[in-house]
Amino acid sequence: MLHNVSMKNLYYLDNAATTKVFDEVFDILKESNTNGYYNPSASYKQAIQVKEVLNNSRETISKHLGGSGGKLYFTSSATESNNTVFSGVHLRAGQTVLISAGEHPSVYESANNLTKKGIVIKQIPLTSFGDIDEDSLLKLLEENNVALVSIIHVSNETGRINDIKKLCKLVKSVNPKIILHSDGVQAFGKIKVNLNELGVDLYTISAHKIYALRGIGALWIKNGVVVDPLLLGGGQENGFRSSTENVLGAISFAYSASRVCENIENNYNIVKSYKNEFVEKLKNSKIGSLVEINSLNDNSPYIVSLSFDNIKGEVLMNFLESDGILISTGSACSSKKAGNRILTAMGLSLTKVIGSVRISFSPYLDYDFDYIVSCFEKNVLHLYENVKVKK
Amino acid sequence: MLHNVSMKNLYYLDNAATTKVFDEVFDILKESNTNGYYNPSASYKQAIQVKEVLNNSRETISKHLGGSGGKLYFTSSATESNNTVFSGVHLRAGQTVLISAGEHPSVYESANNLTKKGIVIKQIPLTSFGDIDEDSLLKLLEENNVALVSIIHVSNETGRINDIKKLCKLVKSVNPKIILHSDGVQAFGKIKVNLNELGVDLYTISAHKIYALRGIGALWIKNGVVVDPLLLGGGQENGFRSSTENVLGAISFAYSASRVCENIENNYNIVKSYKNEFVEKLKNSKIGSLVEINSLNDNSPYIVSLSFDNIKGEVLMNFLESDGILISTGSACSSKKAGNRILTAMGLSLTKVIGSVRISFSPYLDYDFDYIVSCFEKNVLHLYENVKVKK
Repeated sequence: MLHNVSMKNLYYLDNAATTKVFDEVFDILKESNTNGYYNPSASYKQAIQVKEVLNNSRETISKHLGGSGGKLYFTSSATESNNTVFSGVHLRAGQTVLISAGEHPSVYESANNLTKKGIVIKQIPLTSFGDIDEDSLLKLLEENNVALVSIIHVSNETGRINDIKKLCKLVKSVNPKIILHSDGVQAFGKIKVNLNELGVDLYTISAHKIYALRGIGALWIKNGVVVDPLLLGGGQENGFRSSTENVLGAISFAYSASRVCENIENNYNIVKSYKNEFVEKLKNSKIGSLVEINSLNDNSPYIVSLSFDNIKGEVLMNFLESDGILISTGSACSSKKAGNRILTAMGLSLTKVIGSVRISFSPYLDYDFDYIVSCFEKNVLHLYENVKVKK
Repeated sequence: MLHNVSMKNLYYLDNAATTKVFDEVFDILKESNTNGYYNPSASYKQAIQVKEVLNNSRETISKHLGGSGGKLYFTSSATESNNTVFSGVHLRAGQTVLISAGEHPSVYESANNLTKKGIVIKQIPLTSFGDIDEDSLLKLLEENNVALVSIIHVSNETGRINDIKKLCKLVKSVNPKIILHSDGVQAFGKIKVNLNELGVDLYTISAHKIYALRGIGALWIKNGVVVDPLLLGGGQENGFRSSTENVLGAISFAYSASRVCENIENNYNIVKSYKNEFVEKLKNSKIGSLVEINSLNDNSPYIVSLSFDNIKGEVLMNFLESDGILISTGSACSSKKAGNRILTAMGLSLTKVIGSVRISFSPYLDYDFDYIVSCFEKNVLHLYENVKVKK
């Protein structure tokens, strides 16, 4: 019977991996395409109007970021933005780049690629809560010739919110010339972001995590900060990012950014109630004593990391899939190694890392948490039975 | 009166800069989004189905390219594909890269950026027709330690079609280890392309030049050819191109590629008749003796380059805009320098380079060539009057 219910209902709990594009976006784009398909780098009136649409989209997003002290450059994705940071910030061999131990693979991999150029990459350890270990950060800053620091705003694995404003002050207090980058992919549109207040030099955002198209992201650059382009060619985006400007992508990004940012408190409250109900019901279920919540109360409620000791998160995920519940074992845009890397950095045991799953909510979806928790219960108990039999 | 006509009718003759997305693409994407928004790198059934859609799109495009001997990797644009070639092909300091003098800025700029790494960049001269000067190419190949050659398939300035098959044989006859890349942006979907037959190692294509979305392009890589990724991170596209896969972009690309490739002969004939009618009427007009056609009869009919001595192409373009005729002074995705660079390489005088304009047709648009040529006539004669007065 449960099986039939699950086939009727699908609960998408992997919104940190990607979101469903708002339906109306396609109608908006179809309309925009009618008279707005021109190449914004052409010089006739119609093209100039398209360039204005592009720049209006830029301004809209920038406004929602509180980014008047810098400029937003469109890229094809957050991955491209993060890669641009590590290829484009001026660094010399022997200098050190610090990244937190909780970074997304696109920061982790592109930073580590700099070792080829003689740059030293060091990781800032995490506390057991997933916070940046500030004492270690200070020590790393004092003992190395640090030129660039990259700290994720909201962890894509646990939802932990880094206090970027405080961390930025700490970094700049050691050396104001150090460039601070933050990957804000899981923050923008979900928690309030004000870049001017945060004090960062560079900030990465993505469209497809907030119900807009893929193929578009952005890198915000504080006025005066120098970053070389990654893509060379026609000199679009003021010479910063060559490639015909993805105007429809930008329109979708601006539309979705406005819709989520203008409802950010209401959305937050919805998702917070989702998280509370889910965690509460899980703790009060038959598996309450088996589950470990890796996400604290004051984390972003959009992401919850759970661990079950001695069972495999991947197997649990597959079982839940049969019940129509879609979750993740970690960042979908990476191998499971990434999830392992971050939870391991928080000090979780190997068996708990292997037994971890990630649940990520959308305020635009409804969830039946009685059903969802009952499925967790059923499947976790079944898996534990098997563990016992094997033992 | 003419003014009123022009306001009613808009003739878009800048299709080499970008094309209008096919209207039905938005309906297809809206439908695909309903159950196909999942992250293709996730491991539940729904995500695996989305990955299949992505790979089917890849196969469709690859089939139209005759590319069974290699694999197509999605990128965000042709600019990214071209940049990936010059950053990703394994090159050592002291080796030489040859690019034709007729390359798009994204090849020209990213190739020249390699000089920083001690790579020698040399240009293969063009003949006055815009062809590759084969004797010079052979000499360059024999006198340098060439590792990579990049030759555009169809010129974005003149429509000249390079005989890539022949040029590839010539290059490989000197040294079969030389990698040959061709930028096929103005070829794919317009003239028949069969990559297996051409013999190239790398081939760049773009979606937005064939009525699909921006934010998606591709690089085809022959089996066995090694290219390092430009974007690092989650390891999507088999590790070649990190970033959440732009599935809707790929669907639009495959749809439009099929629509244009399945009608490639019919479309070619329509555009050929457009070019013939336009050039014929222009030659038989009052400005017939003033116009120089920089595009030969056997060029791709999709692009026609014209020169008028002693007037400014940019001013003519602005005048025609008032009549509802949208043309270009050269590649829109670049400063005018690019057009200058290529026409200058063909040996055009400076005044003819300055007096050049580019007309590019679409088989999906109707044109009134009596009206269009009458506007050219009116405006060119007016500009020549001014030239005389000034003299």
